[in-house]
Amino acid sequence: MTPKGDPRTQKSSQQASLEWLSAEYHDLNGDHIDILEGTPTALEFARIVQISRPVLIKNGLSPNICGCHSRWVRVASFSSCTYPTNTKERRADAITLGPNGKLYFAEPAVEKMTMQCLLGNLSDDKCSDGDGVAAETYYLQSQNGNVYSSGYDSSEFEPLRQDIPSHVAWCTEALGKSPEAVNVWIGDGGSISSIHSDPYENIYTVVRGQKHFTLLPPTDGWCLDERFYPHATYVRNAGNLVLQPSPENSPPVRWASILNHRLPGYIPPEAHPIHISVSENEAIYIPVGWWHHVRQTGITVALNWWYDTEMRGMSWVMLSYLRDMKDVPSGNTDDEGPKSGCVIRAGM
Amino acid sequence: MTPKGDPRTQKSSQQASLEWLSAEYHDLNGDHIDILEGTPTALEFARIVQISRPVLIKNGLSPNICGCHSRWVRVASFSSCTYPTNTKERRADAITLGPNGKLYFAEPAVEKMTMQCLLGNLSDDKCSDGDGVAAETYYLQSQNGNVYSSGYDSSEFEPLRQDIPSHVAWCTEALGKSPEAVNVWIGDGGSISSIHSDPYENIYTVVRGQKHFTLLPPTDGWCLDERFYPHATYVRNAGNLVLQPSPENSPPVRWASILNHRLPGYIPPEAHPIHISVSENEAIYIPVGWWHHVRQTGITVALNWWYDTEMRGMSWVMLSYLRDMKDVPSGNTDDEGPKSGCVIRAGM
Repeated sequence: MTPKGDPRTQKSSQQASLEWLSAEYHDLNGDHIDILEGTPTALEFARIVQISRPVLIKNGLSPNICGCHSRWVRVASFSSCTYPTNTKERRADAITLGPNGKLYFAEPAVEKMTMQCLLGNLSDDKCSDGDGVAAETYYLQSQNGNVYSSGYDSSEFEPLRQDIPSHVAWCTEALGKSPEAVNVWIGDGGSISSIHSDPYENIYTVVRGQKHFTLLPPTDGWCLDERFYPHATYVRNAGNLVLQPSPENSPPVRWASILNHRLPGYIPPEAHPIHISVSENEAIYIPVGWWHHVRQTGITVALNWWYDTEMRGMSWVMLSYLRDMKDVPSGNTDDEGPKSGCVIRAGM
Repeated sequence: MTPKGDPRTQKSSQQASLEWLSAEYHDLNGDHIDILEGTPTALEFARIVQISRPVLIKNGLSPNICGCHSRWVRVASFSSCTYPTNTKERRADAITLGPNGKLYFAEPAVEKMTMQCLLGNLSDDKCSDGDGVAAETYYLQSQNGNVYSSGYDSSEFEPLRQDIPSHVAWCTEALGKSPEAVNVWIGDGGSISSIHSDPYENIYTVVRGQKHFTLLPPTDGWCLDERFYPHATYVRNAGNLVLQPSPENSPPVRWASILNHRLPGYIPPEAHPIHISVSENEAIYIPVGWWHHVRQTGITVALNWWYDTEMRGMSWVMLSYLRDMKDVPSGNTDDEGPKSGCVIRAGM
């Protein structure tokens, strides 16, 4: 039992340390995650946060919005995301092949639309695996606290606030703080979130549809081959979505290079992904630093509450250490990979 | 901000990582520890355990034993520890120079005595810094759950049980488990615990006298120069205490080589010790893995409750990793340092 590894080179020593941490974490924790039949008390949840492992919460915390569709549909105008779906590589908030043959971290186009317009572009039949039936994928996922945000009083989704609690009482009490951001997410099977981790404690609940999470503990992050990618954004040009690289001096984005972890060979055997589906009226706790890839079945409405993570103590130091142990090269092999001024993105 | 360090050798890379972790932990946490004016609720304590930093609790949890001295004095016979005090090196549960010029991890003699005998050998005037006024130091510190233990029903200190709670309610509720061991500690200024860390969550309260703790976070452990030492025990021989080395095939003990961290130059400037005194009716929480050195003023009676640490999650993995990052050499330079079959000791 030693993380010291092969003494010949620095790199193999660090790789041996990372592999030791993966194996030791898995030995002590296995692949098991707890399933709660109802919402925990604040104290029960505080114990869960200490362990920092995901839990699925049945009979969860979704507000009763079944009868409120009329209110939701009347949301006049809001920012939503759109991106092309006609090839597997063309996804948003993911690594995408640009028209010049270079890989980019691509952000979706953000366009104003009504709820009716959004829902008209979603389908219960879209499959997340194949090419989309439509040329464009719509996904409401502005990620900025679009319902409630500690920084802003107003919201494009003001009419929904009477249906959506501003916090999760047992989580607020356990952590001793209010959420930093509360978001609504609406999409269909065409939307996939590429694997990433967030610097937040996350309570994520499904109101309609089903979300399929693949989770990896922070100790398995090294398996995801993070690299630096230049930044780009989809923009609408003469009716079509075009990937527009950001100016050369924009900071590159550090992102996992694993495009589809479900394909054989994409994740090394040292990693131990946990697969879990979250259905209507269920919630999942995703602890800070846990890697997650998310698919969905049917038109899916979800809410999440992001709570700032605890910076005191050792957890945050160790998460930083795990992320900084390995060199992060450029995602485009002909580039000099910049090592500073980079951006680490959050996102669900 | 990188833990990668000098790429030329494995050793300097690991040393750079350890120094980075020390510095980063200190940047985020400082030297501050919280002081509570009263006992916390279970939920408040669960949050403290998550941060895993010591707290001092005033108006604490000492049972009212002032009126019960008659009961304490009547404890008929129990095991207590004795060791020579006539040189600074001759201490127990510490690294001690043996008669053959070799360094040992020395355990004290364990002798049966009455409370009257023990108290008769303690003094309120003994100074912990100088040579003891008596040739022998007495310290009741059997460390095996001498009042309550999850493994044993009986106790040499049975008469004290009516004065000593079997658990700390808010800690038991926060951790969701009962203590593994409850101990009474009685000594005077002659007793010093050399710096060590325990694999337990520790609630330590002072009933009489004062304890002086020097604390170091787990990230500073590398500063303590842990080494492997052969094991020895003091035995009574013709009335005198003699250090008796254990058989050659006894597992060596891994222990800090810093004999007196208060002498200038003994701890590198990268370490950030926290000094805190605990007086009567105060308690301190010492989180798992925190290094602590303990002195006392006057005849000091203390109680502690050791709770098994949480093995799930990342904390235990990271504590193991921190301890295993650095090579642990032999404490006697002419020895081949054994690297396996070693013993890591707990103790207060």
